[in-house]
Amino acid sequence: MSTEKIHQTANDFNTYVRRMKQLHEAIQLIQWDMSALIPKQGVAQRAEVVGMLSGDLFQMQTSDQMGEYLDVLSRPEAMELLDPITRASVLDRKTEYDRDKSIPPEKFREYVVLTQTAESAWDDAKRNNDFEIFRPYLEQIVAILREFIEIWGYKENKYDALLSKYEPGLTVAKLDTIFGGLREKTIDLLRRVTEQKQVNRSFLHQPFPRDVQYRYSRHMLDALGFDFSKGRFDESPHPFAIGLNPNDVRITTFYYDNDITASLFGTIHEFGHAIYEQNISHDLIGTFLCTGTSMGIHESQSRFWENMIGRGREFWQHHFASLVEHFPAQFAGVSAEDYFKAINFVEPSLIRVDADELTYNLHIMLRYEIEKDLINGKIEVKDLPEIWADKIEEYVGVRPDSHATGVLQDIHWSGGAFGYFSSYSLGNIYAAQLEHAMQKEIPNYREQVAAGDVTQVLAWMNEKVYKHGKLLTPGEIMLQATGEEINSEYLVAYLESKFKEIYGI
Amino acid sequence: MSTEKIHQTANDFNTYVRRMKQLHEAIQLIQWDMSALIPKQGVAQRAEVVGMLSGDLFQMQTSDQMGEYLDVLSRPEAMELLDPITRASVLDRKTEYDRDKSIPPEKFREYVVLTQTAESAWDDAKRNNDFEIFRPYLEQIVAILREFIEIWGYKENKYDALLSKYEPGLTVAKLDTIFGGLREKTIDLLRRVTEQKQVNRSFLHQPFPRDVQYRYSRHMLDALGFDFSKGRFDESPHPFAIGLNPNDVRITTFYYDNDITASLFGTIHEFGHAIYEQNISHDLIGTFLCTGTSMGIHESQSRFWENMIGRGREFWQHHFASLVEHFPAQFAGVSAEDYFKAINFVEPSLIRVDADELTYNLHIMLRYEIEKDLINGKIEVKDLPEIWADKIEEYVGVRPDSHATGVLQDIHWSGGAFGYFSSYSLGNIYAAQLEHAMQKEIPNYREQVAAGDVTQVLAWMNEKVYKHGKLLTPGEIMLQATGEEINSEYLVAYLESKFKEIYGI
Repeated sequence: MSTEKIHQTANDFNTYVRRMKQLHEAIQLIQWDMSALIPKQGVAQRAEVVGMLSGDLFQMQTSDQMGEYLDVLSRPEAMELLDPITRASVLDRKTEYDRDKSIPPEKFREYVVLTQTAESAWDDAKRNNDFEIFRPYLEQIVAILREFIEIWGYKENKYDALLSKYEPGLTVAKLDTIFGGLREKTIDLLRRVTEQKQVNRSFLHQPFPRDVQYRYSRHMLDALGFDFSKGRFDESPHPFAIGLNPNDVRITTFYYDNDITASLFGTIHEFGHAIYEQNISHDLIGTFLCTGTSMGIHESQSRFWENMIGRGREFWQHHFASLVEHFPAQFAGVSAEDYFKAINFVEPSLIRVDADELTYNLHIMLRYEIEKDLINGKIEVKDLPEIWADKIEEYVGVRPDSHATGVLQDIHWSGGAFGYFSSYSLGNIYAAQLEHAMQKEIPNYREQVAAGDVTQVLAWMNEKVYKHGKLLTPGEIMLQATGEEINSEYLVAYLESKFKEIYGI
Repeated sequence: MSTEKIHQTANDFNTYVRRMKQLHEAIQLIQWDMSALIPKQGVAQRAEVVGMLSGDLFQMQTSDQMGEYLDVLSRPEAMELLDPITRASVLDRKTEYDRDKSIPPEKFREYVVLTQTAESAWDDAKRNNDFEIFRPYLEQIVAILREFIEIWGYKENKYDALLSKYEPGLTVAKLDTIFGGLREKTIDLLRRVTEQKQVNRSFLHQPFPRDVQYRYSRHMLDALGFDFSKGRFDESPHPFAIGLNPNDVRITTFYYDNDITASLFGTIHEFGHAIYEQNISHDLIGTFLCTGTSMGIHESQSRFWENMIGRGREFWQHHFASLVEHFPAQFAGVSAEDYFKAINFVEPSLIRVDADELTYNLHIMLRYEIEKDLINGKIEVKDLPEIWADKIEEYVGVRPDSHATGVLQDIHWSGGAFGYFSSYSLGNIYAAQLEHAMQKEIPNYREQVAAGDVTQVLAWMNEKVYKHGKLLTPGEIMLQATGEEINSEYLVAYLESKFKEIYGI
């Protein structure tokens, strides 16, 4: 094939993908609106609009036209002629294309319908504390996923095929190693922490006017460097961040009347996602590389900003004064140190989303073990409630007295999102590893944070992570930034250092 | 052609149109977001998304597929087999199709590019008070519109082709009659009103906290019956209403620090547009009939609610107490009667958008005369500043000392929207005519309004106007609701009665 023909095809491919990305941006905006703003009765009609546009996008992604582009451009002699962005874009689209095209359309439709109906069955089951309502749906979902995996293929472990959907390159073999040490050390540390005396945190749970919470969250976003000319900050029942493009990144939070921590740390968490998206290189606009490189790396940023910065002692050395200024009555007689300890309070509990920084990873590893065994056929859906209860007792030391606080607490499985949970802990692991590397290059970064200055921290993260978007893989980013592959030892060291100090162990 | 084939085609056509309408809804949502919420730097990228989707929609509207559907379904033997909604939808799409397809694509593209660049030229010209900057653009726009009209054809007057774009069935012959009496009577009434003593309205222009203005506007929407489960109320620099579908209708307003009337009557104005859209029959969802039947009828509702209800004495008999409750300091010592007179203050002025209820129509009729003569080649663009100044002096009695307060004040012509201005006065005329008919059927409606109850008024408007959407033409709606064609005598009578009473003439 002629060089000219390859370049022409590359141009056509880029135009085609840019169009897809525009369609994707339209869909994302509508979904943002549906999550944050839409009037109640507008939902049904808008869902049809989203369905129509999503169908169009899927059709473009799996079209013969796309197949022809990828066929030409993914050949070695073509690849070497492409610029790096087009090359990465071809690989990115080819991964999607191969995955989507391999599933027979009628099987895929069956799966889409199933997961749509499964969500309300899950909701019903949770409400009525009746696992049996959800069981047949979950069994079908697992069965179809097992079929998909056979089609997609796998090298060592069936579950690898699902893990790599969210974290390219991740395998059970790697994750067993990564999680192994973390689990042991965390269980041990948690046991020692909970032997210590209780921390007073009653002042965190008293009336906090919502409008002041809003003002303080906004103040915090300003202080951290969220660019309001490139984003919005709104309210929604389930906080989230969405990057429509680097110039329009939107986050939401939720305000509880009697809890300042939810909105405050929720906002800082979403800030981490948002600052990543706001700083992706504009060279990637118009491609699907213009987003975070993986769920895990994305989560590393929300966790880094929420926990390592936002729950750090240095951060509040600077910010505690402004907190007291916004809530003078609530924090009367509370010291920065009291506050720091209260926001880092550790307590074994049943619900993942409410878990503290230390316990959290145990909730994830429990789900990882269950998913892995389920997909590999070592356990079956009907046994999940019992297995769940046993495992959470083993890991965290508490046992659920209902399905709603046990096996039915998360929505994820009803949507078929097996392989997704691990991203949350990968985020913590990546974050600690990145922090360790950054500390070596900016030895006084903690003093800077204590002085209210995060510009160097942001610049470092931008250089190592943000600007690359999805042009680099998670593995490449970690290797370039830290000199090694993913390693959970840094998270273990961070957690031990932090909580031993706080709890005087 | 077989009955079966016709029904099959009708089904396919309806599916096709439903898809177009969904695309249209997506575009509208993005445009709403761009007008009300989008962060500054997100605009450029989002404009490309809108451009892409709008291109797709235009392509569907002018496709060979659409041509085939319309060719089959608009035949008499097919039309009589169709249900009324499909029949009206076919006619509606055929009007668009014939108009769009008749223009050669390269000519249409030229026009689109021209109007896009003309807007910033207009903006420049207005800023620099230099008509010459805008003149060549406006000359080209007028020249192209004259070409389009030759292509579209017309019966009596070239300008008819533009009028009927916004108000189906409207002609110069009709409008000359309708506007004729109105102009004379208004000029006469205005002269007599301005001879009277001045009304104190200083209390309307003092500091009004924006958050209280917001709360009061919301209170007013609640009181009038805006359904918040089917809509939103936000802030934007240029207030507007947009009906995405009857279950999601969004309005905005703008708050001035020193003027309560802008946000208050702006909100009531947009309420009129919104309540129309919220009440359109759900049978029309998925067709382009699911909107107001014309610009003029739409404007009749915003004007009816803003002026006839919202600036009525009865309305404030009920609502003045809540106004004082929200702004006790600002309205200390002001009576409901003082307030009523102040909000109905009449003063000849240069700017259309700031004009009072009486003067307003003169601003419109001046534009109508100019557009009509321009399109018919009786005057030329270069002479507009002088013609404008002479005409506004003749009608309103004031003469502009700059182009910004004269011929360059409106954005409309830069976008090629010739024929549009009349809708505003048609709205006033329709509103008064509808009010007259309603009064006969609900003789005590004013007492109901004075008691804060507008449910019967809403029900009447819904029955006569709202629910029909675009299934009925403006002419059919007026005939069914009032028993006659459009007639400006009712507006004259209303204005004379209202302002003679207020000014004691």
